[in-house]
Amino acid sequence: MKQLTVERWGLLELSLPGRTGGNPFTDYEIRGRFTGEKEDVTVSGFYDGNGIWKIRFMPSFSGAYRYTVSGTFAEAESSGFFTVMEPSARNHGPVRIAGEHHFAYADGTPFYPLGTTCYVWTQQPDSRIEETLRSLKEARFNKIRFCILPKHYDYNLGEPRTYPFEGTPMDSSVLTKENFWEFTGKAEGNHFDLTRPNPAHFQHLEKCILALQNIGVEADLIVMHPYDRWGFSCMPREADDLYWRYVIARFAAFRNVWWSLANEYDLLKAKTEEDWEHYADLLVRNDPYGHLRSIHNCIPFYDHTRPWITHCSIQRQDLYRGAEYTDEWRERYGKPVVLDEIAYEGNIQHGWGNLTGEEMVRRFWEGAVRGGYPGHGETFLNPEDILWWSHGGKLHGESWKRIGFLLDVLAGVPGRGLRCLPAEWDSVCGVPEDPELAERTGYRLYYYSFMRPSFRDFRFDDSTLYHAEVIDTWNMTVTDAGDCRGRFRVELPARPYMAVRITKR
Amino acid sequence: MKQLTVERWGLLELSLPGRTGGNPFTDYEIRGRFTGEKEDVTVSGFYDGNGIWKIRFMPSFSGAYRYTVSGTFAEAESSGFFTVMEPSARNHGPVRIAGEHHFAYADGTPFYPLGTTCYVWTQQPDSRIEETLRSLKEARFNKIRFCILPKHYDYNLGEPRTYPFEGTPMDSSVLTKENFWEFTGKAEGNHFDLTRPNPAHFQHLEKCILALQNIGVEADLIVMHPYDRWGFSCMPREADDLYWRYVIARFAAFRNVWWSLANEYDLLKAKTEEDWEHYADLLVRNDPYGHLRSIHNCIPFYDHTRPWITHCSIQRQDLYRGAEYTDEWRERYGKPVVLDEIAYEGNIQHGWGNLTGEEMVRRFWEGAVRGGYPGHGETFLNPEDILWWSHGGKLHGESWKRIGFLLDVLAGVPGRGLRCLPAEWDSVCGVPEDPELAERTGYRLYYYSFMRPSFRDFRFDDSTLYHAEVIDTWNMTVTDAGDCRGRFRVELPARPYMAVRITKR
Repeated sequence: MKQLTVERWGLLELSLPGRTGGNPFTDYEIRGRFTGEKEDVTVSGFYDGNGIWKIRFMPSFSGAYRYTVSGTFAEAESSGFFTVMEPSARNHGPVRIAGEHHFAYADGTPFYPLGTTCYVWTQQPDSRIEETLRSLKEARFNKIRFCILPKHYDYNLGEPRTYPFEGTPMDSSVLTKENFWEFTGKAEGNHFDLTRPNPAHFQHLEKCILALQNIGVEADLIVMHPYDRWGFSCMPREADDLYWRYVIARFAAFRNVWWSLANEYDLLKAKTEEDWEHYADLLVRNDPYGHLRSIHNCIPFYDHTRPWITHCSIQRQDLYRGAEYTDEWRERYGKPVVLDEIAYEGNIQHGWGNLTGEEMVRRFWEGAVRGGYPGHGETFLNPEDILWWSHGGKLHGESWKRIGFLLDVLAGVPGRGLRCLPAEWDSVCGVPEDPELAERTGYRLYYYSFMRPSFRDFRFDDSTLYHAEVIDTWNMTVTDAGDCRGRFRVELPARPYMAVRITKR
Repeated sequence: MKQLTVERWGLLELSLPGRTGGNPFTDYEIRGRFTGEKEDVTVSGFYDGNGIWKIRFMPSFSGAYRYTVSGTFAEAESSGFFTVMEPSARNHGPVRIAGEHHFAYADGTPFYPLGTTCYVWTQQPDSRIEETLRSLKEARFNKIRFCILPKHYDYNLGEPRTYPFEGTPMDSSVLTKENFWEFTGKAEGNHFDLTRPNPAHFQHLEKCILALQNIGVEADLIVMHPYDRWGFSCMPREADDLYWRYVIARFAAFRNVWWSLANEYDLLKAKTEEDWEHYADLLVRNDPYGHLRSIHNCIPFYDHTRPWITHCSIQRQDLYRGAEYTDEWRERYGKPVVLDEIAYEGNIQHGWGNLTGEEMVRRFWEGAVRGGYPGHGETFLNPEDILWWSHGGKLHGESWKRIGFLLDVLAGVPGRGLRCLPAEWDSVCGVPEDPELAERTGYRLYYYSFMRPSFRDFRFDDSTLYHAEVIDTWNMTVTDAGDCRGRFRVELPARPYMAVRITKR
């Protein structure tokens, strides 16, 4: 008998033939129970088409495990043993909340989410998917937000490569850039069997999730969204439940999965708060690993104090001020703040998609120094209508080049992340979240945003020797500004986007 | 007998010898009554030193007038006749409120205040004063805010050329850039006789006011301010009253005078709201011409709904958002909004004084398109420590060069000014304040601020022929974008700071 092994936080998949008569998606159920010394987890399996049923499990501990499969049909019954090995070098487990406002992998390694958004990169041709993966790696993004369902929106009126349900879509040849809104959020003209998910759609997504995992990128899965002409945003409750259960059963065992209940939840006009709370309940009950959970707004924030929400996923509400509210949001919600939409670098007609690279990077830093985690996005017009924000592919802007530098600065903060001091009115000052570490290291990261001082004066105490560095956040340089004590001056180049980093010697 | 004449809104000055024994500033009074067909005005005169008393009058109508002087001493009695001629070509009279939110000269000519601030330009050597006047003219500023009293502040620790009262100041050799705050708002070490104004101080200011008048610049006089080490910001009530009455008697007859009760009123710790209301009462009672009246804040706005306040003089309260609130302030106060401090272009250490030219001009436009009137300021370090914001002199920045262009755009708005439509969320749209004119001309001024769309689509109606122009607010170009009807697209260069102007053909 073959020795069954999996690494800790790896994915164990049991694959078995089973009952297929009638509608295997709704007529039968299958469950797996996984028992090790430190956990005892029961998960639902799912029908993967072609007569095959699957059950997936992500072990949280190493050691000897036993599994038992049962179901509403006799063929489901089976059991066995497997061994969970120590994780391989680049496997740190799923990302968890660390402290009140930050993140760490399950093995304790700090994680600073600096992500991007490519809503339907998975629905593109293979060559573009490969290109997207290369771009993500080059930019050092460590999280990407994307949709499970296909997208109907400006610059994205084509058909996806697959649909999440069996059936045929409406005739999209009638769509134009002017009339596409009229079809948004409607089901008319489509013929999908909402009792029969399309395994091919989800198998492909899994390949993409795994490809992300292989390059160290978290997959922030948007389970529902309003950019829809196929009726998937206005399905009846039973179809929603089937969809949610299917999604959870398939994806929850991937360690790099995060759950975003919706993008712009408030634009899903067919859904109520009761619906969202219901999906959240389904998720909490059926994801035994407790992956991160959030819900993203267009205008009104969801109540991020709800217990099931692990972190704030925020789209800024104000055209002019956004990342600058990060510290207020941290305090209001007592959770990590991820700025999943602070507008995009680009040049399209919409105000959310035509920032300069400089303004985008300024927003990154405003958010980061205040103890939050900014997200990137990019919308540049091009003859092919391939925009990173929707399709992935190549990055054209300037801000993505500055993500790795910010990541390195954050990784250099003592402890797990920053919080913002109520400092001078005209600078932001981030210090280590842990007060003891802040005191011991004297670490202070001052950011001057759009302002361009020629110098700044400091005085903390008269005895300690400090070390000052000037950080040019745009040109990505760190310049030694020497040791200093008492009242001291740091000369600055009178350019915007500068920071000063102070540490005790 | 010599024929006495003055032009309408000119300044008639009666100068006569009078009682000088004791303290002429407090022991005697003198009044003039000026009677024409359409007005009958009584004003207080003032002692101008050297045995001379003066009474000043600004006639609001042309025609035959009679004057009568009386006082608490016999020598004061006199009377006579004079003729008020029509105003000369460049004399449009004092500036008044026009409609709810705009300004016009007394003769009806629209006035669009685009001013600057040079707090103590009058206290500089003559050569610099001349240079300031040349700079104002070149930049086409039409208003300047400045102090009557001397200024004690960073970059401005020297002695003024004159003091407003007789006496001797504290020893300023003890001052440093670090310790000057400790002397702020205090009177210790000074020996001024607060019952004896120094006429030379005010005579010099009058020369400056007149020089401004000659180049078409309004003098926004800051009567009180907190940047003081001589005790003038914490005088007792009797001294304040003497000062206010003296100031009003001397300056009110200059047609280009505006009254700013204070700069950063809330930093004058010795003064209460009751004090400000008292000064306002003095002003309303003693300025028969009703010059414009405002009061400028550091943090909390004064209650601009108070009836004596003619327009809001606003310093922005938020580091990130300022001019963008203009339309809200207009609505809240129902008065014109003058943005007398939206931070300065420059490179000094303080966040209020180190904007880029681009950001400064962006704020101008945000304020202007929303129907307000932005103010300029400039704070560039230089070896001589001569900063425009305080000393006047030369302009070093980039934003001042764009004032005239904005002025021309505003002058091209049908009627007297703009109001802001509740337009698209990602653009500001100014239309003529007068709804009938707005409808008839179809005039719309869209501003895109920091955003950089490659194009914008419009559709107002399907029959009217419109004309579109692209305005580059930074490069100061207006480019014809052709005639258009129905749904149309205006191509833009995907650069920030662009505007689109639409008018009916």
